[in-house]
Amino acid sequence: MIYTFGIDIGGTNIKIGLFEIYDFKLVEKVEISTPREHQMYSIFDEISKKIENMMHKHGFSYNDIHGVGFAIPCPVKDGYVETCPNLSWSKIDVVRKAKSFLPDHIKVVVSNDANIAAYGENYSLDTPFQNAIFYTLGTGVGGGIIVNGQIVEGRTGSGGEIGHMQVFEGTDICGCGKTGCLEQVCGTKAILNYATELSHKYSSNIDFSNLTVKSVFDAAQNDDIIGQLVLNRVAKYIALSTSILAVSLDPDIIIIGGGVARAGEILIKNIEKYFKHYARFGTIDIPFVLAKTGNDAGIIGAARYTLQ
Amino acid sequence: MIYTFGIDIGGTNIKIGLFEIYDFKLVEKVEISTPREHQMYSIFDEISKKIENMMHKHGFSYNDIHGVGFAIPCPVKDGYVETCPNLSWSKIDVVRKAKSFLPDHIKVVVSNDANIAAYGENYSLDTPFQNAIFYTLGTGVGGGIIVNGQIVEGRTGSGGEIGHMQVFEGTDICGCGKTGCLEQVCGTKAILNYATELSHKYSSNIDFSNLTVKSVFDAAQNDDIIGQLVLNRVAKYIALSTSILAVSLDPDIIIIGGGVARAGEILIKNIEKYFKHYARFGTIDIPFVLAKTGNDAGIIGAARYTLQ
Repeated sequence: MIYTFGIDIGGTNIKIGLFEIYDFKLVEKVEISTPREHQMYSIFDEISKKIENMMHKHGFSYNDIHGVGFAIPCPVKDGYVETCPNLSWSKIDVVRKAKSFLPDHIKVVVSNDANIAAYGENYSLDTPFQNAIFYTLGTGVGGGIIVNGQIVEGRTGSGGEIGHMQVFEGTDICGCGKTGCLEQVCGTKAILNYATELSHKYSSNIDFSNLTVKSVFDAAQNDDIIGQLVLNRVAKYIALSTSILAVSLDPDIIIIGGGVARAGEILIKNIEKYFKHYARFGTIDIPFVLAKTGNDAGIIGAARYTLQ
Repeated sequence: MIYTFGIDIGGTNIKIGLFEIYDFKLVEKVEISTPREHQMYSIFDEISKKIENMMHKHGFSYNDIHGVGFAIPCPVKDGYVETCPNLSWSKIDVVRKAKSFLPDHIKVVVSNDANIAAYGENYSLDTPFQNAIFYTLGTGVGGGIIVNGQIVEGRTGSGGEIGHMQVFEGTDICGCGKTGCLEQVCGTKAILNYATELSHKYSSNIDFSNLTVKSVFDAAQNDDIIGQLVLNRVAKYIALSTSILAVSLDPDIIIIGGGVARAGEILIKNIEKYFKHYARFGTIDIPFVLAKTGNDAGIIGAARYTLQ
């Protein structure tokens, strides 16, 4: 059997997924806390030890490893990270670093975590597409774009920062320093703030003492006026932004993921409704689907990416 | 010597460019009227004859031809055209069609004319980039996108239709059937209409009996209030749209071409001014340049594309 690893390095945890290549089956997943000290070295030391443990446990050697893929929470360009505040990394060639503790025959690939998730989600479809756009809706709004089967890293590795597309005329300043960002209407904070704002105007069954995105969208499902207004605003701006990307890139599919997407089909249906309004030409036929891999998006995508 | 052909098929004329590969020098350019009858056959017949004429004239044979590239005025997907109203073509495999009158060793490539122009413009830079966005501003506003060195054709060959990005809240219906399109503020018609509209409010040195885009932008250069207001609006919306594409795709360069771009440096400078306002993160450093190949964009791009 041949194996490949998908490793998702986050600011808090590192997830290591061991996959059997033939049918892309997850053999084992382990999670460790991200070391806090000397992260330029300690992170790779810990990962190296874990890989050896897993090899030992499942009875295989380096010879049986095809590749190791990494998802990193910052821009990555051709395997190189200029700066990663979440990991206190700067100017680090991640591919070279990983290769220093791995035999030469092992393929090492690296990309930004949202880009990797986009890649993995696309390959988790029944038929992977050549052109896919992935949204991850959470505290932040991000994404990844696949064109001609490849991740769009762009000039500096910042490709796919779709949460900061300007989609409305606003005055509030976003974390990025600008105004009118998609994240400012579709991120978790925006959703909760808008629901609260509406609570001064409408009565609702939402429990505002324990407000969550889930409670707002559950309310929408039950015809609650505030729930529906919030859902409509999120869906409208996702649709507007996807229509802009669709007419520019003509993707095969648009995949919606992240915590906010746990709202499920009601979110997709509303996005599609607004998308029909905004979409140009034949892009109106582009399908929307919910992301499937959830919290494993990073390890699945990184492992898949070693098979490119 | 080895040669390659770049052929730009338009609704009115067909331009055929013969290039010597080694230093990519244009050897000869001929232009013929696009045949009006039986266009599925007659266009290729005419091109075939012209290629043979040029071979004869310059004393080389099919053996000396590397490739033939075509730029077509409609969506093209993997060499296939579903429908091309400008040429009365439908369901035509352009690559196969061209190969039917060419020896097997000759490489045939085809893409949409704006995509081809984007490819050619990028390769006409001192250093071609992996990621480039090209705008063509004319009666229509279109463009082409290069990602990872490749043309973005997308799902149906409609990639790069950036003139129909929705960039403002409008009520007037665009030719595409929607509202708020970039073309509605940056196309030739929009420019002339806006100048005329402003003439009811401001006095100006512009000769409105003979209004052209050039006269409006020349006036802007001379501090004419109407000229400047029109220029500012065009620059603002180009900048807004490029900022959206920039944060999504992180391109190396943005190239501005088409008739409207003959305004030259004053247009680029104004776009850059607004882009600094709209641009997110490090995309603020992305350079803007004017397109260089002008009316030869199609033949140059198509010939370059055979060398991919």
